[in-house]
Amino acid sequence: MKTRAAVALGAGKPLEIMDVDLEGPRAGEVLVEIKATGVCHTDAFTLSGDDPEGAFPAILGHEGAGIVVETGPGVTGLEPGDHVIPLYTPECRECDFCLNPKTNLCQAIRETQGQGVMPDGSSRFSLNGKPLLHYMGCSTFSNYTVLPEISLAKVRKDAPFEKICYIGCGVTTGIGAVAFTMNVEAGATVAVFGLGGIGLNVVQGARMVGASRIIGIDLNPEREALGRQFGMTEFVNPRDVDDIVGHLVEITGGGVDYSFECIGNVDVMRQALECCHKGWGESCIVGVAGAGKEISTRPFQLVTGRSWRGTAFGGARGRTDVPRIVDWYMDGRINIDDLITHTMPLDDINRAFDLMHAGESIRSVVLY
Amino acid sequence: MKTRAAVALGAGKPLEIMDVDLEGPRAGEVLVEIKATGVCHTDAFTLSGDDPEGAFPAILGHEGAGIVVETGPGVTGLEPGDHVIPLYTPECRECDFCLNPKTNLCQAIRETQGQGVMPDGSSRFSLNGKPLLHYMGCSTFSNYTVLPEISLAKVRKDAPFEKICYIGCGVTTGIGAVAFTMNVEAGATVAVFGLGGIGLNVVQGARMVGASRIIGIDLNPEREALGRQFGMTEFVNPRDVDDIVGHLVEITGGGVDYSFECIGNVDVMRQALECCHKGWGESCIVGVAGAGKEISTRPFQLVTGRSWRGTAFGGARGRTDVPRIVDWYMDGRINIDDLITHTMPLDDINRAFDLMHAGESIRSVVLY
Repeated sequence: MKTRAAVALGAGKPLEIMDVDLEGPRAGEVLVEIKATGVCHTDAFTLSGDDPEGAFPAILGHEGAGIVVETGPGVTGLEPGDHVIPLYTPECRECDFCLNPKTNLCQAIRETQGQGVMPDGSSRFSLNGKPLLHYMGCSTFSNYTVLPEISLAKVRKDAPFEKICYIGCGVTTGIGAVAFTMNVEAGATVAVFGLGGIGLNVVQGARMVGASRIIGIDLNPEREALGRQFGMTEFVNPRDVDDIVGHLVEITGGGVDYSFECIGNVDVMRQALECCHKGWGESCIVGVAGAGKEISTRPFQLVTGRSWRGTAFGGARGRTDVPRIVDWYMDGRINIDDLITHTMPLDDINRAFDLMHAGESIRSVVLY
Repeated sequence: MKTRAAVALGAGKPLEIMDVDLEGPRAGEVLVEIKATGVCHTDAFTLSGDDPEGAFPAILGHEGAGIVVETGPGVTGLEPGDHVIPLYTPECRECDFCLNPKTNLCQAIRETQGQGVMPDGSSRFSLNGKPLLHYMGCSTFSNYTVLPEISLAKVRKDAPFEKICYIGCGVTTGIGAVAFTMNVEAGATVAVFGLGGIGLNVVQGARMVGASRIIGIDLNPEREALGRQFGMTEFVNPRDVDDIVGHLVEITGGGVDYSFECIGNVDVMRQALECCHKGWGESCIVGVAGAGKEISTRPFQLVTGRSWRGTAFGGARGRTDVPRIVDWYMDGRINIDDLITHTMPLDDINRAFDLMHAGESIRSVVLY
């Protein structure tokens, strides 16, 4: 079949909207009509050419929602008409990782997914007879895409695609970091470094689990109002204080219980660790640092009881947890609507990248 | 009263054995006759002058066992004749730290203890009318010493002083790192970097909690036999492999569940983290690094599910946990006897430092 898609032909070039060829689902695979997709920093990172694992030509996009159109042989858990959210972290429920309750990093198809192909080693996308690569196992910048069954979370049918697509990455990463990875408890004091899309989801995750103090830190003073809307109780602009770590330790009477770095800056990662409370403070790296960058601290920080951790996809097991997060949204426990600042048709997808780079959007969503 | 003590008159000088003056216990304090004391690397570190917080003249020693001789006003939990182990990490059971189940770092007397004085700001030791400093709240290199009641663990009377003194630091640090800080579970795979006194106690702690594979790593091939005696199941000499991290990841099929750095070398701390299993491996810093040294890694190590942590005094709450560890020793669950390789009278204490620096002893114990 033919499908309309935004194709990344090479690093640093705008996406090109065109009709490409899509082969139907093979064994264990599912054809999905994507109804909406977010545009995420990770897409921009890969498109820029800075991602050492980025390969072209490819169909990017990993934050979508859609409807099952057709299932391949052996697919037992999904049928045409099901509403689904693609998962760049699958959940096979059979590998050593899925069977270990401490992690969500299913490794069932890691290698082929990283190479931009389906588990059998081939691509379903092609252009003029030459294969186009899949991306993060999702390729949601195509109106139709094929995914393994283990990479699809089945969600309720009354949830709007144009909102819940964001649960495919940003919402789950932020809320899951709080609720699944760090298990923040009610009454805790939390610091959130960076109030972009991920940081604001960390903020509302902290509110949802009952944190008492939620301190947002951002260089952009305009983020204060937005942060407060999502549950932030205090705002600090690092430009307004001499020493952000010392300031946070002072206003919290010793440091925060939990901190989250949502920027991808290794210097901020250190600040996030060191503003944690002696004895029990835990810091979680959510942001993705540039290739080759390293974090550092004095080991004394850890020996005196701080922990340094990280999260990917918010520690969520996609097929299990993503439907729960959709419920949280439908129950009004989390706010997605106000984070989606821009929508556009696929033809305008390059504008989503422009808005992101200009800092004008929290999240842009492409509607098919 | 007068007491015989080994006095550190200045950095880098041998200890001098002499009679010093000791004032009796004030409110909340206890006079203890020390019967035996270990000589620890931390004593050597301070004596060397490298410890930025070291101050002189002082009476070092923090790994002792003895008998209560006299109690000051207000002491309710101890009476003359009680057997006790001094605690450099006290347990007041009232401060924010003691009331938080996540930490053992009681802060009740931190400031004065760090200054080498009793909680009221004065020293009980003096020489020719001039005060001598206490050390780590213990000063076990004196036959008699005074401590706050909250710095003494009451232990059973049938336990031999010359063995259980080691529970005052090394044993508890190693075993507690496994059992209290990291909560290693039965069946786990554990790597222990450095098979000195602390590392061997980590090894036997891992054996006690039922770890399946306990991999010891040391540059000294003579440590292999000793490690196996304490429960080590595999030994790796980093000199025998090209890449210690890659080797450990390979032989464990992906990395270890828990690793412990028991040396104090920041490069080894990085290796200990990076040999942990993706998704769930946790690394614990037990060793004390030199002043100003920093640890580093790529944040990717944490984002993909490893945790970097640390421990002090093995996460033990001294008054609660030290008596339990004495029980474990008396029940034959842990081996202390074979770690105490040398004993000597106080007059020969400087030989204990020589043996340590020469790598000839695991632990030397001074018998009063």
